[in-house]
Amino acid sequence: MLEEYIKGIEELDEDIMKKAQSKLDNLTKPVGSLGKLEEIAVLICGIKRTLNPKIERKVIFTLVGDHGIVEEGVSAYPQEVTKQMVYNFVKGGAGINVLSRHINAEVIVVDIGVKEDILSDRVINKKIDYGTKNFLKGPAMTREQAIKSIIYGIELVEEMKDKIDIVGTGDMGIGNTTPSSAIVSVITGSEVENVTGRGTGISDEIYKRKIEVIKRGINLNKPDTDDPIDVLSKVGGFEIGGIAGIILGCAKNKIPVVIDGFISGAGALIAYKLNQLTKNYMIASHLSVEKGHKILLDYIGLKPLLNLDLRLGEGTGAALGISLVEASIKILNEMASFEKAGVSRKIR
Amino acid sequence: MLEEYIKGIEELDEDIMKKAQSKLDNLTKPVGSLGKLEEIAVLICGIKRTLNPKIERKVIFTLVGDHGIVEEGVSAYPQEVTKQMVYNFVKGGAGINVLSRHINAEVIVVDIGVKEDILSDRVINKKIDYGTKNFLKGPAMTREQAIKSIIYGIELVEEMKDKIDIVGTGDMGIGNTTPSSAIVSVITGSEVENVTGRGTGISDEIYKRKIEVIKRGINLNKPDTDDPIDVLSKVGGFEIGGIAGIILGCAKNKIPVVIDGFISGAGALIAYKLNQLTKNYMIASHLSVEKGHKILLDYIGLKPLLNLDLRLGEGTGAALGISLVEASIKILNEMASFEKAGVSRKIR
Repeated sequence: MLEEYIKGIEELDEDIMKKAQSKLDNLTKPVGSLGKLEEIAVLICGIKRTLNPKIERKVIFTLVGDHGIVEEGVSAYPQEVTKQMVYNFVKGGAGINVLSRHINAEVIVVDIGVKEDILSDRVINKKIDYGTKNFLKGPAMTREQAIKSIIYGIELVEEMKDKIDIVGTGDMGIGNTTPSSAIVSVITGSEVENVTGRGTGISDEIYKRKIEVIKRGINLNKPDTDDPIDVLSKVGGFEIGGIAGIILGCAKNKIPVVIDGFISGAGALIAYKLNQLTKNYMIASHLSVEKGHKILLDYIGLKPLLNLDLRLGEGTGAALGISLVEASIKILNEMASFEKAGVSRKIR
Repeated sequence: MLEEYIKGIEELDEDIMKKAQSKLDNLTKPVGSLGKLEEIAVLICGIKRTLNPKIERKVIFTLVGDHGIVEEGVSAYPQEVTKQMVYNFVKGGAGINVLSRHINAEVIVVDIGVKEDILSDRVINKKIDYGTKNFLKGPAMTREQAIKSIIYGIELVEEMKDKIDIVGTGDMGIGNTTPSSAIVSVITGSEVENVTGRGTGISDEIYKRKIEVIKRGINLNKPDTDDPIDVLSKVGGFEIGGIAGIILGCAKNKIPVVIDGFISGAGALIAYKLNQLTKNYMIASHLSVEKGHKILLDYIGLKPLLNLDLRLGEGTGAALGISLVEASIKILNEMASFEKAGVSRKIR
């Protein structure tokens, strides 16, 4: 069923995209002078199959999960922070709450695998398990759980698809740069050292350990590069699978999806490996400080809109990116044409 | 009097800035994980001398002037477009109108030297002359006019200073990349070729002519590198002087000023040469496609927030930059602390 669903993703509408560029070229500005804003506007038209797209109902899904690998001491923060941050999200005090209010977006917090029960009806319960397993002692999750995490992500989009114009991805989960680096190393074929960063800010000593842990995890579990679900199950995380599912759901439903940073990027890699057409529906919001991020974006072929040295996750970069997408669509929809404004055209 | 005014610009409050960084470090996120947003928030505190700054009342000044140098055929568009665009601004159909609405800012359009009279009470009349002179036939303006353009810019800020939290600069004027390149060449000591771009999109032939015109203008008028007012008068433009004045006025009144692209950057260079402390009050919104822009930003020591291949001017990049500044201040003011949210701190 998942396979069937993924096969249903369609190409962009290139005819509409040409018309969108013509529409932009008729607006009162030199041709192409709004650069990437114009590229985004054209892309959104190609995704939504219209010359008058709307970007009004904005949603950021922040998926939260725990990671067995934190047993190995790879994070600077204690594991309970995952759960504590869920309550911070619910109370509106986290970075993603602030930036979502700034862009007038809704944050939807999803428990896809927090280690403890979450006692809040403002959090969507899609819990697969109480955290993944330590991937130095076997796979992080079963293949069934990996598939479930993707399906849960798809469901989040399917359940809301008629109420959303654009989606941003977000994550929270102490330790989750570790599985993300493992996924990026395996799928892009990069050395672990080149795709492993300092996450929330670890010391040299922990950084060395983190690299060692990822290498051992990959050697032990031998994920199959050509099978993204195998990679996800062996060294991944529930929120990463969920993000992959959100991207697949958006692509299937022709909804643009703005990818946050490194962890969301790992999810994007899984989605991309499942169907490369998903790339057309993705917008990379920003370039993270995490050193593997550029490698994964290059692998997919995405160029980030922003470079603000962010490394918070939660969907914070996606929020800022969504605002630029919205701006680009307002340009397309609201600017006057040369004719309408009575402005003369180029003469030379 | 201008000299006196310029001398009154003060240093940033570094004590407040240290406290602002501490405040940020206590919020529920890894230290430094919001990168440039944190840097901006700290800067705004240092400018405004408070740990709870407000960025609510946002204004973009779009200064409009004409240029005698267009006689030499350096632009792709006819000169009347300057005036036509003023009416487009008034009617709300230009790029800057759309992006200002997007960020909830007010656009204030100022005629500082349009070639014809502007018949609209929604445009501020600070007209110095009906366009500058062709600087291949003598200086673009008199020294008195150059000083007046700066004072007019200062006046714009002084008249509104109690009603604005942040200012964006903007420009319109067919041909105005030509004087801007001349100013950047003279002040930074760069070859004309290295600081001259294609403006609104000129052909190879016109591009060659444009470089030639700038070189001849500089050779003929011999602007004094160490006298920014001389440079402005010999090869500048009224809107460029006005933008320099706006920056001086903001610096004097401790109002952050977000600099748009290349033409605004030329104004920033003039302001910076008049008093280097102005740099502390400037935020570079974006890196323009115009090739001289990076050179001038490096000269001042500014790093642009955005790189979106913009080259429209009007203040469009500044609008997007202001939104990021606002986001950074909301982070500072609205995020929960570790204590308040009950989130554990770093353990390693």
